[in-house]
Amino acid sequence: MVCPKLGYFEPNYYKRMMVSNECIELIKSTVGEQHVHTQNIENYGRDYTEDLFFAPQIVVKPGSAAEVAAVLRLCNEHKISVYTRGAGTGLSGGSLPVSSGIVLAMERLNKILKIDEQNFQGTVEPGVINEVFRQAVESKGLYYPPDPASKGSCFLGGNIAHGSGGPRAVKYGTTKDYVLNLEVALPTGELIWTGANTVKNSTGFNLTQLMVGSEGLLGVVTKIVFRLVSKPKENLLMLAPFSTAEDAAKAVNAVLLTGVVPSALELMEVSGVEIAATATKTHFPFREGAAFYMLVELDGDNQELLMQQAEQVFPVLEDCGAMEVMLADSSDLKEQWWKVRRSIGETVKSASIYKEEDTVVPRAALPQLLTAVKEIGNRYGFTSVCYGHAGDGNLHVNILKYDLSDEAWNIEVPKGIREIFEVCKSLGGTIIGEHGIGLVQAQYLDVVFDPIHFELMRGIKKVFDPNGIMNPGKWI
Amino acid sequence: MVCPKLGYFEPNYYKRMMVSNECIELIKSTVGEQHVHTQNIENYGRDYTEDLFFAPQIVVKPGSAAEVAAVLRLCNEHKISVYTRGAGTGLSGGSLPVSSGIVLAMERLNKILKIDEQNFQGTVEPGVINEVFRQAVESKGLYYPPDPASKGSCFLGGNIAHGSGGPRAVKYGTTKDYVLNLEVALPTGELIWTGANTVKNSTGFNLTQLMVGSEGLLGVVTKIVFRLVSKPKENLLMLAPFSTAEDAAKAVNAVLLTGVVPSALELMEVSGVEIAATATKTHFPFREGAAFYMLVELDGDNQELLMQQAEQVFPVLEDCGAMEVMLADSSDLKEQWWKVRRSIGETVKSASIYKEEDTVVPRAALPQLLTAVKEIGNRYGFTSVCYGHAGDGNLHVNILKYDLSDEAWNIEVPKGIREIFEVCKSLGGTIIGEHGIGLVQAQYLDVVFDPIHFELMRGIKKVFDPNGIMNPGKWI
Repeated sequence: MVCPKLGYFEPNYYKRMMVSNECIELIKSTVGEQHVHTQNIENYGRDYTEDLFFAPQIVVKPGSAAEVAAVLRLCNEHKISVYTRGAGTGLSGGSLPVSSGIVLAMERLNKILKIDEQNFQGTVEPGVINEVFRQAVESKGLYYPPDPASKGSCFLGGNIAHGSGGPRAVKYGTTKDYVLNLEVALPTGELIWTGANTVKNSTGFNLTQLMVGSEGLLGVVTKIVFRLVSKPKENLLMLAPFSTAEDAAKAVNAVLLTGVVPSALELMEVSGVEIAATATKTHFPFREGAAFYMLVELDGDNQELLMQQAEQVFPVLEDCGAMEVMLADSSDLKEQWWKVRRSIGETVKSASIYKEEDTVVPRAALPQLLTAVKEIGNRYGFTSVCYGHAGDGNLHVNILKYDLSDEAWNIEVPKGIREIFEVCKSLGGTIIGEHGIGLVQAQYLDVVFDPIHFELMRGIKKVFDPNGIMNPGKWI
Repeated sequence: MVCPKLGYFEPNYYKRMMVSNECIELIKSTVGEQHVHTQNIENYGRDYTEDLFFAPQIVVKPGSAAEVAAVLRLCNEHKISVYTRGAGTGLSGGSLPVSSGIVLAMERLNKILKIDEQNFQGTVEPGVINEVFRQAVESKGLYYPPDPASKGSCFLGGNIAHGSGGPRAVKYGTTKDYVLNLEVALPTGELIWTGANTVKNSTGFNLTQLMVGSEGLLGVVTKIVFRLVSKPKENLLMLAPFSTAEDAAKAVNAVLLTGVVPSALELMEVSGVEIAATATKTHFPFREGAAFYMLVELDGDNQELLMQQAEQVFPVLEDCGAMEVMLADSSDLKEQWWKVRRSIGETVKSASIYKEEDTVVPRAALPQLLTAVKEIGNRYGFTSVCYGHAGDGNLHVNILKYDLSDEAWNIEVPKGIREIFEVCKSLGGTIIGEHGIGLVQAQYLDVVFDPIHFELMRGIKKVFDPNGIMNPGKWI
């Protein structure tokens, strides 16, 4: 469904099917007239992905799971496309209404329904903001680890749709590792629970994990039961500059081979750090000659033990060529360093038109990946800023247009990206770690999928969504 | 496909389709004549489930993934049923050849292909024994936590087919949490990899987790890439007798609310402990008046820290009514206590004809579940031995026939089991935690699945297996 000739971001390529006035009236009678919008809805045609825009025709804001199901039943009957939308912080264009239909905005389903302190579980609606849930959970002494960079605004439902990660995944895993059970409205209008509120479950196919990462193609998540863990009482943050990319990348695995499992292990290319620190007016301890900075966070219940672990990590970093190892001695400092790290993705955008790639390889292959990215960039003449969750082998590669011609940008750069993805594949990795396929990565899927993969996934989609109303025009 | 009138264990109920001599010759030419067996194969008609037996017609032992794929292609063409079999240690009859066809025995695919000490990953064939892999991994300082009771003989491929758990799940999760990537032979004869060798992956539907727990209904796993963790250097084992089931069940959650995460938290009803200790001739510190025994294992890298954690756990156990708390002061003692725990399931069988249920609820609901099991047992007149992975809310309920009439056993007891499962469901749990549905639990699935669940799962099966050759006659 993407247009390789025009470029995948060409709105006119997509067939627009306008929703009839009669259907709009039916939808209004389902969710209430005041929750169906056709004016001032431009923002629902954008997310955080590059400069994509697809004008929405109508935005529907259901107020309950039953209303979601009723809207889907109606759209299924009338073959109206449904684009489910969270907070619009996606990085792949996955929720954008490319062929019109309705935008199903989940923002009214924003209640934390239960925090179960006995069973370490939390039940929420999909429109709850990640950070709001995290704070509510922490106020009870519990912890929900997945924290994507957009945690202050992204919805938990969107985290599920994209299998979102974040820096804590190296120790704690990603969103998928915390989802126990989902209430899902199927395109045909039924509401089901996919599993049970238990960590163990071997009763039938794992529909829960089939929904996680399915990008709004199979149904709409209307309730989520998360598993929680005890809140670690202490943490400790180290920062180490490296003069070469290779040293920094090698240090990642060396740290993990000590047996210490950091709660975050991040790499940041100096150009990204500079842009982020400047844009956010944050003080950062720049070191002359540093090419990459590494953040190592440890967490646990015992500060003394964390210091012992840090003492295991220090010499390893030094052996790998760290120019020095700094330890944050205040929560202010920790916040500053994290602020810079978290702002890179967003602030780099201001430097130039860009494309953001989300490569992932087995972590020990990071040096090869980083070398390949730079070599390919040199060959195709593009600048990249690399950063990300190195402990997971998950490297974000932001490619900046600067003064490249449109032709080079639209035709040549994608060839370079394809080469990068082929390297990921050859190293045992894949092309997307936590951002989803959406619109922008669809054209590269043949790097990792054979025709039989598409056949299976299309078959599964058809089982759930026989009329193909869910998120049409995307990768499947 | 089960026969509610005759009982699900009635072999004559199933339609037997014999494989023609012509097809047997074709199979022989694919895997070699010496690997196709038609004599002395009775054992392939049994597993560890009750007294089920279905006579196999032909046992095929492929030697490579390519041979598995070729056999499947052939069977698909000729519509021959395929019953994939691991070590035959299943507890739900999931692999039994109910309608003849071929038994695809995976025992020759038994190689550990790679232990990647850099990336903490292990790649194996499905016929590797769980314990063999665990030991190989531990010899490299790494750790593969999932350890079902049958770990000394069960195959890793079978662990995947059933989403197997074990005692370490309370801290480490189950098999599914360690599977990164699978090579799968599809019924139509293609070989695919389901994902990538990375912890993070948001590239398409999660085919990997769809395969885990799919009980041989979708395809045949031919290679597995597991995630590994650092081996904990130390552990510590406590044993506490309780005079009532209620006290013991309440203590489970009380321990977990301390914030300490035990590497195992097991409950054992005294009758089970007696049978297991006697049958295995193992010394066990029985205490007069104890109704349940609890095992609490802690692991980590620092013995001092473990003792600190144990000191947090001690008073909690005592407050909950533990008659005393014993600490194993030698590895011999640890081994003895674990031997008794691990032998209950197997040795209880020798006491009587039995049915083994594998209930699971949110852990704090364990007291209600245990009370309900006993009350229902009293009402239906059956004896149960309860034990299992209490920290996960996973309670095995072995129901013993003793001198019940066949009628009571075949007609009345299943009604009681159904009531137990309805209690599980009402508490937010489900009917099977780690044994799979297979044959014996199929009749109870309507307790947790609506018609739409079956429709979705049947639809998914049809996508993978259009001719329905994989494991026919089971629950789907």
